[in-house]
Amino acid sequence: MANETTTTQPLVGIIMGSQSDMKVMEAAAEILENLGVPFEITIVSAHRTPHRMIEYAEQARKKGLKVIIAGAGGAAHLPGMVASITTLPVIGVPVKSSNSIDGWDSVLSILQMPGGVPVATVALDGALNAGILAAQIIGTSNAAVADKLEKYKVGLKDKVMRSVEELRRGDRDLD
Amino acid sequence: MANETTTTQPLVGIIMGSQSDMKVMEAAAEILENLGVPFEITIVSAHRTPHRMIEYAEQARKKGLKVIIAGAGGAAHLPGMVASITTLPVIGVPVKSSNSIDGWDSVLSILQMPGGVPVATVALDGALNAGILAAQIIGTSNAAVADKLEKYKVGLKDKVMRSVEELRRGDRDLD
Amino acid sequence: MANETTTTQPLVGIIMGSQSDMKVMEAAAEILENLGVPFEITIVSAHRTPHRMIEYAEQARKKGLKVIIAGAGGAAHLPGMVASITTLPVIGVPVKSSNSIDGWDSVLSILQMPGGVPVATVALDGALNAGILAAQIIGTSNAAVADKLEKYKVGLKDKVMRSVEELRRGDRDLD
Amino acid sequence: MANETTTTQPLVGIIMGSQSDMKVMEAAAEILENLGVPFEITIVSAHRTPHRMIEYAEQARKKGLKVIIAGAGGAAHLPGMVASITTLPVIGVPVKSSNSIDGWDSVLSILQMPGGVPVATVALDGALNAGILAAQIIGTSNAAVADKLEKYKVGLKDKVMRSVEELRRGDRDLD
Amino acid sequence: MANETTTTQPLVGIIMGSQSDMKVMEAAAEILENLGVPFEITIVSAHRTPHRMIEYAEQARKKGLKVIIAGAGGAAHLPGMVASITTLPVIGVPVKSSNSIDGWDSVLSILQMPGGVPVATVALDGALNAGILAAQIIGTSNAAVADKLEKYKVGLKDKVMRSVEELRRGDRDLD
Amino acid sequence: MANETTTTQPLVGIIMGSQSDMKVMEAAAEILENLGVPFEITIVSAHRTPHRMIEYAEQARKKGLKVIIAGAGGAAHLPGMVASITTLPVIGVPVKSSNSIDGWDSVLSILQMPGGVPVATVALDGALNAGILAAQIIGTSNAAVADKLEKYKVGLKDKVMRSVEELRRGDRDLD
Amino acid sequence: MANETTTTQPLVGIIMGSQSDMKVMEAAAEILENLGVPFEITIVSAHRTPHRMIEYAEQARKKGLKVIIAGAGGAAHLPGMVASITTLPVIGVPVKSSNSIDGWDSVLSILQMPGGVPVATVALDGALNAGILAAQIIGTSNAAVADKLEKYKVGLKDKVMRSVEELRRGDRDLD
Amino acid sequence: MANETTTTQPLVGIIMGSQSDMKVMEAAAEILENLGVPFEITIVSAHRTPHRMIEYAEQARKKGLKVIIAGAGGAAHLPGMVASITTLPVIGVPVKSSNSIDGWDSVLSILQMPGGVPVATVALDGALNAGILAAQIIGTSNAAVADKLEKYKVGLKDKVMRSVEELRRGDRDLD
Repeated sequence: MANETTTTQPLVGIIMGSQSDMKVMEAAAEILENLGVPFEITIVSAHRTPHRMIEYAEQARKKGLKVIIAGAGGAAHLPGMVASITTLPVIGVPVKSSNSIDGWDSVLSILQMPGGVPVATVALDGALNAGILAAQIIGTSNAAVADKLEKYKVGLKDKVMRSVEELRRGDRDLD
Repeated sequence: MANETTTTQPLVGIIMGSQSDMKVMEAAAEILENLGVPFEITIVSAHRTPHRMIEYAEQARKKGLKVIIAGAGGAAHLPGMVASITTLPVIGVPVKSSNSIDGWDSVLSILQMPGGVPVATVALDGALNAGILAAQIIGTSNAAVADKLEKYKVGLKDKVMRSVEELRRGDRDLD
Repeated sequence: MANETTTTQPLVGIIMGSQSDMKVMEAAAEILENLGVPFEITIVSAHRTPHRMIEYAEQARKKGLKVIIAGAGGAAHLPGMVASITTLPVIGVPVKSSNSIDGWDSVLSILQMPGGVPVATVALDGALNAGILAAQIIGTSNAAVADKLEKYKVGLKDKVMRSVEELRRGDRDLD
Repeated sequence: MANETTTTQPLVGIIMGSQSDMKVMEAAAEILENLGVPFEITIVSAHRTPHRMIEYAEQARKKGLKVIIAGAGGAAHLPGMVASITTLPVIGVPVKSSNSIDGWDSVLSILQMPGGVPVATVALDGALNAGILAAQIIGTSNAAVADKLEKYKVGLKDKVMRSVEELRRGDRDLD
Repeated sequence: MANETTTTQPLVGIIMGSQSDMKVMEAAAEILENLGVPFEITIVSAHRTPHRMIEYAEQARKKGLKVIIAGAGGAAHLPGMVASITTLPVIGVPVKSSNSIDGWDSVLSILQMPGGVPVATVALDGALNAGILAAQIIGTSNAAVADKLEKYKVGLKDKVMRSVEELRRGDRDLD
Repeated sequence: MANETTTTQPLVGIIMGSQSDMKVMEAAAEILENLGVPFEITIVSAHRTPHRMIEYAEQARKKGLKVIIAGAGGAAHLPGMVASITTLPVIGVPVKSSNSIDGWDSVLSILQMPGGVPVATVALDGALNAGILAAQIIGTSNAAVADKLEKYKVGLKDKVMRSVEELRRGDRDLD
Repeated sequence: MANETTTTQPLVGIIMGSQSDMKVMEAAAEILENLGVPFEITIVSAHRTPHRMIEYAEQARKKGLKVIIAGAGGAAHLPGMVASITTLPVIGVPVKSSNSIDGWDSVLSILQMPGGVPVATVALDGALNAGILAAQIIGTSNAAVADKLEKYKVGLKDKVMRSVEELRRGDRDLD
Repeated sequence: MANETTTTQPLVGIIMGSQSDMKVMEAAAEILENLGVPFEITIVSAHRTPHRMIEYAEQARKKGLKVIIAGAGGAAHLPGMVASITTLPVIGVPVKSSNSIDGWDSVLSILQMPGGVPVATVALDGALNAGILAAQIIGTSNAAVADKLEKYKVGLKDKVMRSVEELRRGDRDLD
């Protein structure tokens, strides 16, 4: 896996503000693995390691990353600050951390970026979708990944159709 | 320009739910022109032309688009529904339309997509950032666009530094 | 029951975005059974099975349905998209799903439909009321159902009066 | 028109809490006229004429109404209180009145009805959709109205397609 | 106690929309007992027993009540509707019921009454304060009750001063 | 009038945090005049004249007041702080001042008082209702005022009935 | 420690509205101890001991305090009222108490102070940050405290770097 | 003044994210001038000049500043990021910029800082209070400034008392 010794060049960098965000952000790593997109994952805190954050953002393109996924909670400045430095697409994951006001702070401080510096924001705790979106971006120039995404989409549909079937067979505990 | 006769293959498709969204969405078109990214622009309403929307989303990849920007207001279903069909990255622009509750409805109905179907959401009325984000995605595999984005970023800084200078010279009407 | 083999023509179609919505949506099915309104129930996901959704909505009137009840959570597009295709009355149930921001996303993305395409929205997790509303609509042209609704309303009152009586008899653990 | 001498039996009753709601609620009357659904329209205030409201709701079914549309703002009790008395379907229109907190009070006090007493709520100031929804309900047992609704839906699409055409011809003031 | 056989004329009527509100509303009854204000308590549902509500409000002044305390949750119409009929002061208690959106619906549908029909609203689940406020109103013309309120206020202060003392003596588990 | 030389003992004290609140608070004074309730009116700022506020609250009962109406905006502490000192009923009017966040701050900092210290909160900018509520409290022991309130209520109904009549006569500019 | 017998002059006064706020506010005391800033801590209720609050605020500067930290929940008036009396910097901690509406009331009634009377507001339940901010203020004229703050900041970074290292070594339970 | 040639060492640094914030932030500069606190003022954008921001924060203490006031709107990262680097007290002013969602984004992304990195947040557009708070911090070790703050507080009271007097003399256009 990318955060151990890998021979593949990571294309996606997953970062998060705190170790406690890992339980949410792992979904991004898992789906990227499933979709065959090499990635790296680490902790970068905007507020506790600002210089590390600056350096991470400055090095991202140079070391071959194509997309950055950044998750943070509360007054979540990590995604927007990384986007202020790199011109790579940055995907922001608002995390509903324990000190959050129902997630509104995380969502608004990632989403409402000023003109000139976009962050591609996904749903609250939406790390799975951040991973898929990163793969879609990679897939704009990588046919293998694009193909895996098509198969993933078919899988979503198949799962629904199986539950349709279960329901049709009467597997509903109504009366 | 792409909505007239163009010889260049459009890479970004800009769609919006209603003609009245054009005053917001034009900013996406303008920045893409400035960044040299060919695009097409049209109106596709999720609620009034659902079949046209389905067809647009189904054809998008086949006709060579790499990114879709979709703007809509109120119960804004266009970005999410397009994303349900295509595996291209879809950027959603919540528009603060006249019938919106302060923009919250537009933001939440675009942002809060279920697991499996991401929409890259930008700020309320953030069409400029949607255009830049689309260019960043194109730029992951197009060095010319990536280079223009770097120059654009320098321009953002230069504009701030000019206002710093104006303020330093005393161009502030305080006392 | 309608989702097994039935000889009665279903008049109400209950659909929901995900199997996990069933624990909320069952209340609609139960009250329709109690009120003697034949119904069918299945899973239709706007985002994972968009073509199935389109087809369901297109066939609804033809196969004899008179009302559709659609429940969904988060960025809840199912009720509005079904309403974009059929001219049957569509009742939307905002479901407070696990990935919802306190239910606000579900409520706003169902309620705030644009002019021309109404969705009859009920309270958050209000599947019981969706069922009653569907029966009221059927009852505008079906005297038997209208009569059952009158009896149901009397039953609501009777239940309150029984708790009034219990309280009057001192069944309150105050002092 | 229905509020003058009419020979046609009104099928929809439009009521509103205050004369000042008329500028919003007129859209319901206009669309019902266009769709050929006879209606009556009057002012009934839950808070200033409670007995009139009770009587209106009690008489509604007896005098031949099939649907009630009720609009109100602020702590909007009219739709819910009418629904507490009649078993006709009641459509609630939250009005963003001058004393409203951005419309949230109107929306929540109409939408969040308790189990047993539904109100079919439409968008803030959504009187047009209330009228269409009333027609859809009438249309469940009236083929002429159902047919007019189908034509109205086609008209919605045609209007979008005309703006698509205008945009295609270059009628956009971009550059 | 007032809801059993009492020889004292109740001065305050406590009503609530549902038996499940009792666990909140009991605090109003308890403090009125402590302050020596005779009261009655019962269940009156605006939506399930509208005629009972009308009658209760119409009889309130005649039978000697001076204040009404009304608690309700969700789309909470009971306090406002009672206030539409009686000219007695009505105190509204927004109850955070299970079907409430974090209490906002209860608060706004009680607080935001239109001009002409006030409801004296207290905090979410603030039944204790509703009882005290009722006693304060009685106390404007009843010296015994006013005196008990003064003593109650001293008691509030004394309780704080005891915790000040405990903290001063080191009863804090810090280091 | 009460804020000039009066021979009548004021029963209601109207206070507000700032001169700019007068345009809202005047409605309380006007309705009290109409209902024949003597009052005094002045400015008392919790944050700029805290000692004056303390003294006002301490003297209120002694000088014969029976109710206090306090209006304030933003972090509105005046009503709650006055209530912390006096045992008279205190009516709070949340004012939507220029520095308010849509009125939410005013509403919540007046409404959400802790157990033991109630404030009777009315709607945002609801000074008219504050005046009526004060009169209702006076009316619990003053038959003349109670009688005027009954007449005022009839007047509310009569005004609605006049607009009903105007609408019935066709005074609606619909087609 | 400051709330027992101390020979050091306390520089920071920590107060809170209720004993139940101690579990949140203790974090302020702990960090001040760690940073070597002498403090005192007690309970002062704006609503239950208003005169004690006035006296506390009036004496604060005289007895040598340089900063006041005040924590309160719901309609939280303590920080703002203390700030109305003293010219010392007052830091407000919004506490998410049990009777709070998700903390919004606490936040807004502390934050939204009128012009002229600032309260330095920290995050919901942010007592740790209140303590650090108080130390930063002391540190503007106390080199020893400023130095400890620099070391604390390095400690924050070190803790992040340790979790970076743990993650790098594969201490992540992903496959 | 500090942004021209000054001989006095600035003690407060006022920074803001954009030239357009000047109309709000000027109030901070004006009050500091009135209170005799030397300051400097400039534009530092977190998102468009991140390196300038880092450098500004790193140099702040070294060049003699004791307090930083930072104003920003939307996803407002400037105050928090400056606080991540310096240990000086940082005062954050949420600006209700044109692209803000009613100011909520500015407020939450400044207020909700994680443990360890406080920002002293003032009210929305509360630059006046930011200036006063900065002076209060300076005043903890500067008797001249502390004295001016006492006089300023007296001035606040005097202004209220003058409006009390005007109102008493009948300068109210009521009747």
